[in-house]
Amino acid sequence: MEGTRAVVLRDHQIALIGGKIAAIAPHIDAGLARELIDAHGMLAMPGLVNCHAHIPMGMFRGIVEDVPVEEWFNNYIWPMETNLTAEDVYWGSLLGLAEMIENGVTTVADHYFMPDQIARAVEQSGMRAVLAEALFGGVGAEQRLAASLEFAAQYHGSAAGRISVVLGPHSPYTCEPEFLSAVARAAVQHKLGVHIHLSETLDQVESSLAQYGKTPIGMAQASGLFEVPCIAAHVAHPAHGDIAALSQHGVGVACCPKTSMKLGIGVAPVHVLRSSGVAVGIGSDGAASNNSYDILEATRLIALLEKHTLADARTLPVAEALGLATREGARVLGLADRIGTLAVGKQADLLLLRLDGAHHTPQHDIAANLLYSARAADIDTVLVDGHVLMRDRRLLTIDKAQVLGEVNARSERLTQRRTGKRVQSYPAA
Amino acid sequence: MEGTRAVVLRDHQIALIGGKIAAIAPHIDAGLARELIDAHGMLAMPGLVNCHAHIPMGMFRGIVEDVPVEEWFNNYIWPMETNLTAEDVYWGSLLGLAEMIENGVTTVADHYFMPDQIARAVEQSGMRAVLAEALFGGVGAEQRLAASLEFAAQYHGSAAGRISVVLGPHSPYTCEPEFLSAVARAAVQHKLGVHIHLSETLDQVESSLAQYGKTPIGMAQASGLFEVPCIAAHVAHPAHGDIAALSQHGVGVACCPKTSMKLGIGVAPVHVLRSSGVAVGIGSDGAASNNSYDILEATRLIALLEKHTLADARTLPVAEALGLATREGARVLGLADRIGTLAVGKQADLLLLRLDGAHHTPQHDIAANLLYSARAADIDTVLVDGHVLMRDRRLLTIDKAQVLGEVNARSERLTQRRTGKRVQSYPAA
Repeated sequence: MEGTRAVVLRDHQIALIGGKIAAIAPHIDAGLARELIDAHGMLAMPGLVNCHAHIPMGMFRGIVEDVPVEEWFNNYIWPMETNLTAEDVYWGSLLGLAEMIENGVTTVADHYFMPDQIARAVEQSGMRAVLAEALFGGVGAEQRLAASLEFAAQYHGSAAGRISVVLGPHSPYTCEPEFLSAVARAAVQHKLGVHIHLSETLDQVESSLAQYGKTPIGMAQASGLFEVPCIAAHVAHPAHGDIAALSQHGVGVACCPKTSMKLGIGVAPVHVLRSSGVAVGIGSDGAASNNSYDILEATRLIALLEKHTLADARTLPVAEALGLATREGARVLGLADRIGTLAVGKQADLLLLRLDGAHHTPQHDIAANLLYSARAADIDTVLVDGHVLMRDRRLLTIDKAQVLGEVNARSERLTQRRTGKRVQSYPAA
Repeated sequence: MEGTRAVVLRDHQIALIGGKIAAIAPHIDAGLARELIDAHGMLAMPGLVNCHAHIPMGMFRGIVEDVPVEEWFNNYIWPMETNLTAEDVYWGSLLGLAEMIENGVTTVADHYFMPDQIARAVEQSGMRAVLAEALFGGVGAEQRLAASLEFAAQYHGSAAGRISVVLGPHSPYTCEPEFLSAVARAAVQHKLGVHIHLSETLDQVESSLAQYGKTPIGMAQASGLFEVPCIAAHVAHPAHGDIAALSQHGVGVACCPKTSMKLGIGVAPVHVLRSSGVAVGIGSDGAASNNSYDILEATRLIALLEKHTLADARTLPVAEALGLATREGARVLGLADRIGTLAVGKQADLLLLRLDGAHHTPQHDIAANLLYSARAADIDTVLVDGHVLMRDRRLLTIDKAQVLGEVNARSERLTQRRTGKRVQSYPAA
């Protein structure tokens, strides 16, 4: 999907060789093919890219609703996260990955704890992932950074290249400026990217200005984090100068519309960011706030919200909106040379989507139907690197019944909140 | 779902007798039951109420995207609607009804042309509907009103009481004040309600104020339309005094968030309306603008949008939002005594929804999962008046393959636009 119109080729075949797209043409000699997938009547499209997630947080889905963000973090999420064991994170990751595959996500950028367990689940699932360990400042921060670097050394490029690792300083409000700088230096030294939460709420911007005289984006820039490839999650409240900084340094933004709307904390101004040359992709955020991992839903949501906000139906037209979830998401993650479009030479990360539902009829505009009428349940088949992860809506790499059983068995213990125990403190306004 | 918390009863059975709910209890003697439906692991909930639709417009799904509302109406929709034959409207209605049943809608308030064809499709489908024929002013308006009254006399209470009829003056911008008054007098005389588009765009409000010194809502009130039960679609821009008028006269509002966001024309201020005592339900509008008939999606959308707009996560909490699509929708349509909740004595309009997906796991809060994680494809079974319209996602009253074939065969002809032909003119700003 390039330019202003989505390109839909009818009656084409796709050849995959060695995990890559080898040909796209009306007729391909299938004589030597090891496997044929009949996609008659279906749409082949690039796998969806989820630019910001906390994969295991599906375990907290629905645990707290309709409360402000400070209360959400301090009274519920951060206390509950102290309960997490390594096995919890592993099974929670499989839950999140199962849901993402069912929703057509083939690549996810994660930001969480115990990333070795997440990597273990990603490797098993067959998905592609950019993993960051969440790093907070304070006592022991340097040791945690060292451990993160060890994780990166071990896992960057693992799972046949499907896993890449970046450093994950949580945010300027939970990491002191010196620690942000230490992370930036380590990233430069080890040739790693970073993934950070920036300007998620207006309070964060105001607190940062009051404390440092700089916005969170200004703090990230000053600390050197923009000297390496950077994924900036949220960016709901870019202030004067912030957008130019993001654009000049090629920082990609992960817009998470569902979480941000649900918490009432503001959404990235996608049209404005893109007009200034900033790459914007779509993120789910964690399923504790989202409460799902549905990137098609999130893409539709930001298209609707941008048209509404700017009171202009021409904003984010169909092809551009669909591009956010695919091509632009790949750009944000620094993977544009490998994924994000269906093109010869790209990795074979693709979906087959059924078009035979009443809600797809008639097919005046397949791309418009995809953006505004389709739902995740229409996705029939999912491939990553040419390997089939789901077919006929059945997961092939994850034992879903086992995962749901494990998650259900763990869910009550995880929701206990013990006084004084929490991962972090969320600053009140 | 009453009050501030959704009521979820576990391990209950529901007995249906004569199309109504006869009992809801943990154990019901099923010895005399003619049919048993195993709903183990599923959620029984009230059927969804769609308070504003143009059912056959699924035929125009995706035909025009990303253009402003004046262009959308004048250059595309109204010219194309001149192509519609009676059979087109019938098959288009079956398409829309098939999609609605698949999406868990059991009652729909329609506003369109050739309502006898729509009634024919509704009767066949088994759905419940409140039908209004769209009436425009101008030459011949009185004859069209007379024909509408004939339609009402013939169809009000038909289909074993599932069809009711109201009068459908399109809007104050397409009906002269005298005609609105004539419709109001006819409604009073024939004991009928009305269904009208009010204050859908800011331009409509400004034009009305300039031309008449009254808002569209003020015009409707002055013409006497609020003296009968009135469904007001959209109400995106209520001005000073409008909300009090709606509240005092018990006018119900059909909020159509997806269409209104997509066209960038403004959305009903649901929290403000409800705080003033106005009943608000959810509408899909037509699938030419929506582009689907998914009331669960629309309900989620308005919950997210209201939290975003008011920057307050506490706005429209889970139970209240779900109530819009069920109990409050029934109020808006004047059917609260018959549908909208699962209660003994109510008509047996209900859904069975699967809870076994990864996206429903874990079940910390089934109601939150329903509002924020579920999707239409989770709906397994749909009943209206105790009759099963869908089971295991298979439609039982509509031959879907035939309907999709008929619609596809008609779709190219319907999109022709002939110079000078249109149903109406949409006033430019």
